[in-house]
Amino acid sequence: MRVSIYNIPIEEVLSQVRARRVLLQLPDGLKPYAIKIAKAVQHYTGGEVFVSSGGCYGPCDVAVWEARRISADVIVHIGHAPSPHAPSGNDIKIIYIEGQIIADKSHVLEMLRRLPKDVKRVGLAYVVQYRWLVGDVVQHMRCKGREVVIGPRGSRCAYPGQVLGCDYTTATHIENEVDAFLLLASGTFHAIGMQLCVKKPVFVLDPLGNDLFTVEKDVESYLRRRTARLAKLKDAKRVALAIGTKTGQLFLHEAQLLAQYLKEEGKEVVFVTFDEFYVERIGNFTEVDAYVVVACPRIEVPGGIWGRPVIPYDEILTALQFEEQN
Amino acid sequence: MRVSIYNIPIEEVLSQVRARRVLLQLPDGLKPYAIKIAKAVQHYTGGEVFVSSGGCYGPCDVAVWEARRISADVIVHIGHAPSPHAPSGNDIKIIYIEGQIIADKSHVLEMLRRLPKDVKRVGLAYVVQYRWLVGDVVQHMRCKGREVVIGPRGSRCAYPGQVLGCDYTTATHIENEVDAFLLLASGTFHAIGMQLCVKKPVFVLDPLGNDLFTVEKDVESYLRRRTARLAKLKDAKRVALAIGTKTGQLFLHEAQLLAQYLKEEGKEVVFVTFDEFYVERIGNFTEVDAYVVVACPRIEVPGGIWGRPVIPYDEILTALQFEEQN
Repeated sequence: MRVSIYNIPIEEVLSQVRARRVLLQLPDGLKPYAIKIAKAVQHYTGGEVFVSSGGCYGPCDVAVWEARRISADVIVHIGHAPSPHAPSGNDIKIIYIEGQIIADKSHVLEMLRRLPKDVKRVGLAYVVQYRWLVGDVVQHMRCKGREVVIGPRGSRCAYPGQVLGCDYTTATHIENEVDAFLLLASGTFHAIGMQLCVKKPVFVLDPLGNDLFTVEKDVESYLRRRTARLAKLKDAKRVALAIGTKTGQLFLHEAQLLAQYLKEEGKEVVFVTFDEFYVERIGNFTEVDAYVVVACPRIEVPGGIWGRPVIPYDEILTALQFEEQN
Repeated sequence: MRVSIYNIPIEEVLSQVRARRVLLQLPDGLKPYAIKIAKAVQHYTGGEVFVSSGGCYGPCDVAVWEARRISADVIVHIGHAPSPHAPSGNDIKIIYIEGQIIADKSHVLEMLRRLPKDVKRVGLAYVVQYRWLVGDVVQHMRCKGREVVIGPRGSRCAYPGQVLGCDYTTATHIENEVDAFLLLASGTFHAIGMQLCVKKPVFVLDPLGNDLFTVEKDVESYLRRRTARLAKLKDAKRVALAIGTKTGQLFLHEAQLLAQYLKEEGKEVVFVTFDEFYVERIGNFTEVDAYVVVACPRIEVPGGIWGRPVIPYDEILTALQFEEQN
């Protein structure tokens, strides 16, 4: 089924599935097509379909609790590949439908020319929406005399070469074997995440934006923001640990360890829970000087909340490791 | 314990309670004092305290699922009185702490003078935050020669005379016995809701705003908005039924009945679920022409979402009843 810029193999995946009631999770880009998609899901599963209005950030973000609340027996989660780290639904069946972002393949192959000539050994990585392009991209680069290396599967990913916002190990594994990386992805989010993990240059091929680019400047500006907010955290007296409660993104133990660390640093700490991160809600805790977000890493609020820094918890862990090493 | 404009009897209520882990629900006005309140709750219960960042709209809005996600054994819900309609937490103990809004009692009694002289028989109603004023207000009015009538307890309320956004039956029960109503409340929300239910005038005494006023104009403008959005719904081809999944506010059966009705009217319907109502999220379903919100009644989005009407489901039920009667 083609919807907007996506190919979604709904029939292929769901034709054998029977459901009584389905909770359908769509990435935001597909919500404008909810009626069409819900109809197809209803048609193939026979179930009554409810579409979640919530975000759908990664294969770990499975709306198990929401499904329980409406007594759904099946969750259809569109846009991600199943992760070995994804939560189990217990009594609720979870079905992933990957979805491809449609792009002009010949343009994509043409853009490969713009990869500098001295990049002989290319480490190839991709977000799952562009997995369908991988075979052709590899073949094309090999024909042009480049060596292509694809790293092993990261522990949170479904495929070798695949990256997630929280898993770039497919790249770090092969860093020493390559001159540079080529990442098939749109936007800068994954590219910045990957460039933070490897020292070799990352070239982003964006099939949707028809562009090939690097993100050094974005990484520099991200690092400046990180340094600034960690400095502000140092001065903070009262800190809220904002703990996300989404299934698959609930890190209570980490929150408790961080609370202990912050208390040892002389800070007052309060635990605050949230489902989706809304500045308007988290911002209500106006007595605190800083927020540390324990949830999906890299929820970034660049300017902070009304001047108070918002620090993804993994940035503190990174900073601590750095201190330990030095 | 006094916090901001509230008296909250934390010690009185919690001194006998033991907890392992507490989910603390605060109205937004108390979130700036979360650290102080969380400390008190921790002190009396001995439990590890997590503060929910979510809204806390009425005694039925108990964050049972959020408590389950973090394995809390006790929910402390501040700001409402326990409702007979409130959900059970099953394995999770739910404790309500009412909270008084502090006001100058002598000013309040003085304002009673502004109630027109011809109002001889007064129906008294209040939101629970002002329950502590009721005795004095009644006594004062009786001394001044007025008759005071307090209606019986509505089925969702804890006390005779108490109103909730979804329960004004304490007033409708005594409408024929009084010349007018006096409502102890702040703002216009409850006053509009009450004035919609009764034909006698409602005078609002706002202890916080130090004011006594009526809401005819607000009611008129509300009714104009309601008429306009119901007219827009009539023209809508595609309708999203936005179903709130909060415990105590989940009305699946009503949603299904409404879907059937809308389909019989020739409309396409899609079920959309939400936890808290955010225009930014619900607005993502851009293909629909109208939204019907099945949740806490009177979630109002006066201008609709980018021109598309947002209709509280009880307004449709009211309109249907009206059609049936005529």
